[in-house]
Amino acid sequence: MKLYHHPLSGHSHRARLFLHLLNIEHDEEEVDLAARGHKSPEFLRLNRFGQVPVLVDGEHVIQDSNAILVYIAKKAGATQWLPETPAEAAAVQRWLSVAAGQIAFGPAAARLVTVFGSKFDVDEVIARAHAVLNVIDDELQSRDWIADIGNAHPTIADIALYSYIAGAPEGNVDLSGYRNVLAWLARIEALPGFVPFQQTAAGLRA
Amino acid sequence: MKLYHHPLSGHSHRARLFLHLLNIEHDEEEVDLAARGHKSPEFLRLNRFGQVPVLVDGEHVIQDSNAILVYIAKKAGATQWLPETPAEAAAVQRWLSVAAGQIAFGPAAARLVTVFGSKFDVDEVIARAHAVLNVIDDELQSRDWIADIGNAHPTIADIALYSYIAGAPEGNVDLSGYRNVLAWLARIEALPGFVPFQQTAAGLRA
Repeated sequence: MKLYHHPLSGHSHRARLFLHLLNIEHDEEEVDLAARGHKSPEFLRLNRFGQVPVLVDGEHVIQDSNAILVYIAKKAGATQWLPETPAEAAAVQRWLSVAAGQIAFGPAAARLVTVFGSKFDVDEVIARAHAVLNVIDDELQSRDWIADIGNAHPTIADIALYSYIAGAPEGNVDLSGYRNVLAWLARIEALPGFVPFQQTAAGLRA
Repeated sequence: MKLYHHPLSGHSHRARLFLHLLNIEHDEEEVDLAARGHKSPEFLRLNRFGQVPVLVDGEHVIQDSNAILVYIAKKAGATQWLPETPAEAAAVQRWLSVAAGQIAFGPAAARLVTVFGSKFDVDEVIARAHAVLNVIDDELQSRDWIADIGNAHPTIADIALYSYIAGAPEGNVDLSGYRNVLAWLARIEALPGFVPFQQTAAGLRA
């Protein structure tokens, strides 16, 4: 399989991190965002939204980072990472939704402003980042991993949340008040096979 | 099981619609948003984000509308609505992410401004609504249902997208240019068990 990605895209990093954690052999092709490679006709045929990452596995073309995490987990039979009982699958989905919602339009958007010059209301997206970080920090008070399913093993929900929270300081979202979040970041970073999310000079975590 | 909801919340409608389409017996309790019932200590114990809907089923408390759709589909064994092969599950997840992302921060946000007086940049969220509607309209050119898995049956991705697209005109997002989207809305509205998303006077579709 081949992952189309960009090293400064947190959505890409989610997919790449999970492939490495599961030690799945794959190719990686960097899409030249500066040359608008993600808006080329060829790339738009892979993803009409014109966004990285995209995973191509034979006849299957998977768009959206959450969907790629689901695809990889299911194909690998990695039920620890994506449990299949109704309540456990729902507990994971809850945080995939947060990753696609408040995280994408919170800390990820704040970082898009500083790293890529995107136009967002900076105060609004930074406030949204702190609102969601407050909840996540509370949730992590009582357990090691974000999905509330018994605490034994990380899930794809942790992977979906990791990249843009780790990169939040690049968007001027200060993490120093979130002790449980910082400990959780360190737990993910200690997993065998972990690969870091490339940071720009703007965002080295204090 | 009991669904905590509000009739003007599209996130609530997703869950309520799916329960009715599957003809699943349940109780419904309206949360008094005007009296800030969703921010009461009791409700925050069910959902730290203080948002409807929440589904309570015995010991299980499910937050997030996408997660509720996953829970219901899996509990009912409704694999037509949520297929379980890696590629099919990913194809559904892709649009659950869109529902939690561009839809929530696009047409849903535009409607929050007009219906609830929420503060968003109106031009930004309306532009985001049209961007995602354009892609969805393109995708629906070649098939009846949004997840690209062979076109036979709607999935929970259609349910997740329906409510805020149906309600988009309430947020001054004009749907008249999206012929495929309008035909898809009508297909969903023709499903046995369909229950409408309550519209305010602001938003009766032309």
